[in-house]
Parts: sequence; structure tokens; C-alpha cells
Amino acid sequence: MRDVAVLGVGLNKKWGELWEMSLRDIFTEAALNALDDAGVDRVDSMVVGCMTGGLFVGQEHLGSLLSDYLGMNPAAATRVESACASGGAAFRQGFLEVASGASDLVLVGGVEKMTDVSGDEATYALSAASDMEYEAYNGITFPGLYALIARAHMHQFGTTREQLAHVSVKNHRHGAKNPVAQYPFEITLQDVLASVMVADPLHILDCSPITDGAAAAILCPVEMAQKISKQPVVKVLASAQASGTIALHSRKDLTWFESTAKAAEKAYKMAGKGPEDLHVVEAHDCFTIAEIIVIEALGLAEHGKGGQAAESGMTALGGRIPVNTSGGLKSKGHPVGATGVAQVVEITRQLRGESGARQVKGARVGLTQNMGGTGGSSIVHIFETV
Amino acid sequence: MRDVAVLGVGLNKKWGELWEMSLRDIFTEAALNALDDAGVDRVDSMVVGCMTGGLFVGQEHLGSLLSDYLGMNPAAATRVESACASGGAAFRQGFLEVASGASDLVLVGGVEKMTDVSGDEATYALSAASDMEYEAYNGITFPGLYALIARAHMHQFGTTREQLAHVSVKNHRHGAKNPVAQYPFEITLQDVLASVMVADPLHILDCSPITDGAAAAILCPVEMAQKISKQPVVKVLASAQASGTIALHSRKDLTWFESTAKAAEKAYKMAGKGPEDLHVVEAHDCFTIAEIIVIEALGLAEHGKGGQAAESGMTALGGRIPVNTSGGLKSKGHPVGATGVAQVVEITRQLRGESGARQVKGARVGLTQNMGGTGGSSIVHIFETV
Repeated sequence: MRDVAVLGVGLNKKWGELWEMSLRDIFTEAALNALDDAGVDRVDSMVVGCMTGGLFVGQEHLGSLLSDYLGMNPAAATRVESACASGGAAFRQGFLEVASGASDLVLVGGVEKMTDVSGDEATYALSAASDMEYEAYNGITFPGLYALIARAHMHQFGTTREQLAHVSVKNHRHGAKNPVAQYPFEITLQDVLASVMVADPLHILDCSPITDGAAAAILCPVEMAQKISKQPVVKVLASAQASGTIALHSRKDLTWFESTAKAAEKAYKMAGKGPEDLHVVEAHDCFTIAEIIVIEALGLAEHGKGGQAAESGMTALGGRIPVNTSGGLKSKGHPVGATGVAQVVEITRQLRGESGARQVKGARVGLTQNMGGTGGSSIVHIFETV
Repeated sequence: MRDVAVLGVGLNKKWGELWEMSLRDIFTEAALNALDDAGVDRVDSMVVGCMTGGLFVGQEHLGSLLSDYLGMNPAAATRVESACASGGAAFRQGFLEVASGASDLVLVGGVEKMTDVSGDEATYALSAASDMEYEAYNGITFPGLYALIARAHMHQFGTTREQLAHVSVKNHRHGAKNPVAQYPFEITLQDVLASVMVADPLHILDCSPITDGAAAAILCPVEMAQKISKQPVVKVLASAQASGTIALHSRKDLTWFESTAKAAEKAYKMAGKGPEDLHVVEAHDCFTIAEIIVIEALGLAEHGKGGQAAESGMTALGGRIPVNTSGGLKSKGHPVGATGVAQVVEITRQLRGESGARQVKGARVGLTQNMGGTGGSSIVHIFETV
């Protein structure tokens, strides 16, 4: 396998309710920013993560649409989907394409246009990440599934309602320093606890929002990046993906994301690194309870003790291992197909030292963890400046 | 890049209106058949092509769902989409994964469950392969787009209505020898011409049907296949993909699939073969006009002369280069996400000499061409027994 580098990254100017932009506009803005950042104007191939163009905007065949609109024809262009981990899965496919030697320059994008439908329609579309026939069609919503997980974690380990809130407070504190963020402001513990209930014990401020947005990264061989890049070269040390049970009822332990643990295990092995070597992490905080279990599954906290991490400041900027310096899904926003690629954008900038007010000083090794559904799929990447 | 082989292949027992089976059942039947054929019971990774689980059955996150249901967790599992070329795109991703060295055994599947929705809903779902905002939302259907292409070809090259019909007659003649086929019977030229009009000049018997079905293939390094396979080893000589304009209004030449021509050019170069070296071809005959232009773009006929191919018998079993010995999309059926993988199944069996009544004698080199939308994406693979 060839060594692979991230040559450039890009996001939209702003994430949120982008009513004046179509899906193709949103994607193209981020892709052009990534091409500018990489200093290239052509790619050999494109891979685009999107969860459900079909249910959100009635458009499939996104590889062709977006290659065409971006002016990249006749480049190969494929859309990849793994629910809310679509971006991470797309990044992995792009990584494999460069690693295999089939392409030198690959644009990996992620996009979701979520605000053109009603709240009911969005709830239905997002449920398509669960086991529809056994879960959603029997009445449970996506926040409902995570509420079950949260209750189990509280019951089994004594995780408190306040600890959940600390995750959200921390991520908003980080996001307040990120101009792209949909909700770039701080919130208090009281704000979370007093916010409207969605699915007990999860309040609205435990939940990531509905967001329009895109993210893009340009991949190439490390050797090429070392020749043409004016920035520190960020190498992809590891790319790993694993599947877990899609439905909660088949899960041995409701308080655990086996797919994240397995993907992390593979990634640490491939990278020759462990959790103790990481300087900065972007983790999938679709709900506050998700970040708590994810940092346990990544080995950053013991199983059952993830609730203490945000509360103690361990995962905050300035703490032992800052998690979600971008604001995470909660504050930055969660355009589901874009999220996994946006995590790579944040880590790349951190490792290049370009993160301004939210820079982790001296960060050289970073990790992204992107998750589909309630943990049915997880993708972990590890990066290092070389 | 490592050399990649097809270790095993599988389909459902029967394609058609599989009302008693859910999407997961359909996929699993084909996948288990491929695993049996390969003689393995585990894979490192899965890639699943599906056009629109969202619009047909309300289910995304198919990688996770199908890995779980097949008992393959914690294997990586990703869904790939490129409209009607989703299967071909999935096969290419699986190829890259083995070629890169990231995985040894990869299951590539394709599936679509299309008959659980009404005709109107199916028309809408399939339109998602076109440029929805500029084409379908302004009223044109998918057969309508291909009717424009057919009219242009007839006008520019004198292609006749009868020549279109000959494609369908030939593919039904082939499909009559394929027990899996949805419509395994012969039809006459008069049947096609007398059948109900869908979009002038295309009659219903020019159009591939709505189908439930799945297909699967197991990929591994050629070296491994040579050690463990009891069958002739089928090597993937080339894997190439290209994009063209998604919307017809942006196309310079309505009578041409530039994406197919570009993908074929790349594939021939990678394989070190030309059209004259092929013994058997599976081509994307979603409509009769499609096969005519595709064989031109593959270099099997001059541009404008594809209409004569089926009429003259050149592309029939026993002719110079048999095209769609499986019955093609027209007779075998077209579960859109499965089609590209099913083409690989047919070519693999042909190259192994297992095709019974429809065997092309001495076939050693075969090609598959899978196309998304009206040619917005094309994927070409070339295979050889080694």
C-alpha cells in the first residue's frame, strides 16, 4: 500500500439552514475550497459521502451530479453511504483508491441538505439509519434509541444527567470559537437541563441539530504531497472500519459501541499508536451519550467512566485530550453525510497548526471517529504530521 | 497493486416480484450462494451496491444491516451508489480494497427491492438517477429521456424501429436459457412493435422491467485464488469508471455515452486488450437504444452502426461477439443496484465454462459495462481466465 496524505481540506463558509443553496451548490463550495487549499485544479477520482439524498432532496446518482457540476468529468465519481458515517466511509474508500495506486489525486467529499423537508420527514429519513423493519416502523425514533442507551449507561455505571450535559456545554464552548459552526455560542449546564425534553433523559440540547453543509478533502500519495504542498504534510496513518449490530435488540451490551472498539483496535494497530499518543480527537457526538461511550470505546476512558471526562475537563481544550475542538456535531452542526469528512478537516487543520483560538498546542497526532446509526458502523482514522 | 480474482459468485434462485422476501432476505440468499461457490465462510469486508433503499423500502445504512444479517460483523461494510451502476461501482470499490492490500477477502453485493412501491413511486425513485432539479421535476420520466436519445440516434444515423426491437428479441432469446431470469421466454419482432407505447419511440418491450433481486461476488488476490479455488481462476484484468454529464441538455452529442467510451478506453489500456480480444460481453441494456449505443462506445461497432449489430446476429449467441448472454437487463430483470454485480456473475460463469445452454464456446476474455442514469456514470471491467 502506498502512504497517503491529506493535501487539502475545505468546508462551507457557514453551516446551518442554507435555504438559498441547493445540494449541488453546498457541495461545490466546500469542494472548491479544498481544491484551493490543495493547490490543484483536477482530480482523478471523486468519492462523495451522503446518507440519503433520496429522502432529503429526491436526488441519487450524486457522484455523477457533483462531478459534472464541479467540472471534473470524466473523472470517476462514486457516492458512498453508511448512514451518519457516510463521510468517514467515503474517506476510507478514497484512501484505498490512492493506497492501491489506482489514482493519485482523489477528492473525498461529504454533503447533506437536510432542511428542505418537514420535521416529520427528517425524522423518517434519519430513522433509515436504524433497522427500519424492527425499530422505526414499530414506532421508535432515533433520539428514542439513544435515550435507551443513555438510560442503560446511567443505570449500569451511575452516569449522571449532569455529566451528559457537560458534553454539550464543552462542545458549545469549543464551537463558539469556530466561525463555520451552526450554533457558535456557549451554553450553560442549566440551559441543557432546562431545555425541552426530546426522549427522556435526552433534552434538545443533548441532540445534534439538522444541518445543511458539506466538507471536502483532497488525498494523494505522501511522496507527491511532500513535493507540491506548501503546508505541513498530514499523513493518514490508519484507516479502519467495523460493523456492529444495526438494531439495539441484538446487542449484548446496550452501553457499548462494539463497532467503534473494533475499528479503533484495528486503527491503533495499523498506526502503531495507542490512545495515549493522541493529541486531538474528533468523535461522533450525535447525542451527548454517544460521545461518552465513544471515548470509552476509543480507550480514552475506562468503560463506564466516560461520563467523568467532560465533567473533569479532560476532554476540553486545555485538558489531557481535547475532543471535538470543532464544536462537534452538537455545536458545529451535523449534515450527516458531511460529518465524517468535516472531522478530517478539523484534525488536518489542528495538525497543521491552523486552528486559531481553538488550536491544540503542538498537536501532531489526531484521530477521527465517525459512526453510523446507533453504532451499526464505525470508521476510525489516525493522522500524523510527517 | 495486487492482482485480483473473482473467487465465487451467486445470484438468487429467481429474480422477479419477490413479495415474500424482504431486501435483507434477497441479499442474503445471493450472498450465501456466492460464499458457497467461493468455498469460504468469512470475509474481511463487504461492499454493497444499492441505488435507493431510501426511496424503495425506507432503509439506508445497508452495509451495517446486511453485514449484521449475514453474520459478518465486525467486518467493514459499506454501501455504494451510482444509480443503475451501483453494482459496478461497488465491484470497483471491492477491487480497489483487495488491490490495495487492505483486505484479502471482500464480498461485493448488489441488491434492489423495487416492487414494494406503486408504479408512480417507482417512476419517481428511478428518476433520482437523472438531474432531478432540471429534468424529472420539470416532468420528464426516465423512459422519456431514453426516448429522446433513441429519436436522435434514428434521426442522425437512420437507426430503425425494427433494429431497436432486435435488441430485445435477442436478449429474450438468451434469457429464455437462463432460469434466474424474470422473463425467461422468447418474444418476436412483432411482439415488440405491437406492445404498448411508453415514450415514443420506446414500447414497453424496449424497456427493462422493475425487479427484485440481488447478486454477489467474492474477491481475493489471484495468488490466494490459485491456492484455494477448485474452479478456473478468473482474474480482473481492468477496472475503470468515468463520469459524463448527468443531464441530457448539457450533452454535446445525444447519441453517445461519453462516460462509457472513456471508461472503456481506460479499461482496454489497463487490460492490454482491445474490443477484438473479447469473447463475451454483458452490457447495460436498460432500454434497447442503450445497448445499441453502448456497443458503439465499447468499440464493438462503429458510431451510428450499433443498430445493425443485433439485426445481423453479430451480438447474438453464435455471432461474432455475444452480448448479454444472461438475457440482459431486459429479460433477466433489472434490480438496479444488483445489475452491475450480476453482470460479473454471468461473465465469471462464462469464463469458467459453466453457462450450459448459453455458453460461449472457449470464452476466456469477457467484459462488463454498467451504466448509471442516461450515462452520467459508467463502469467497465475486463476479466480473463488465468
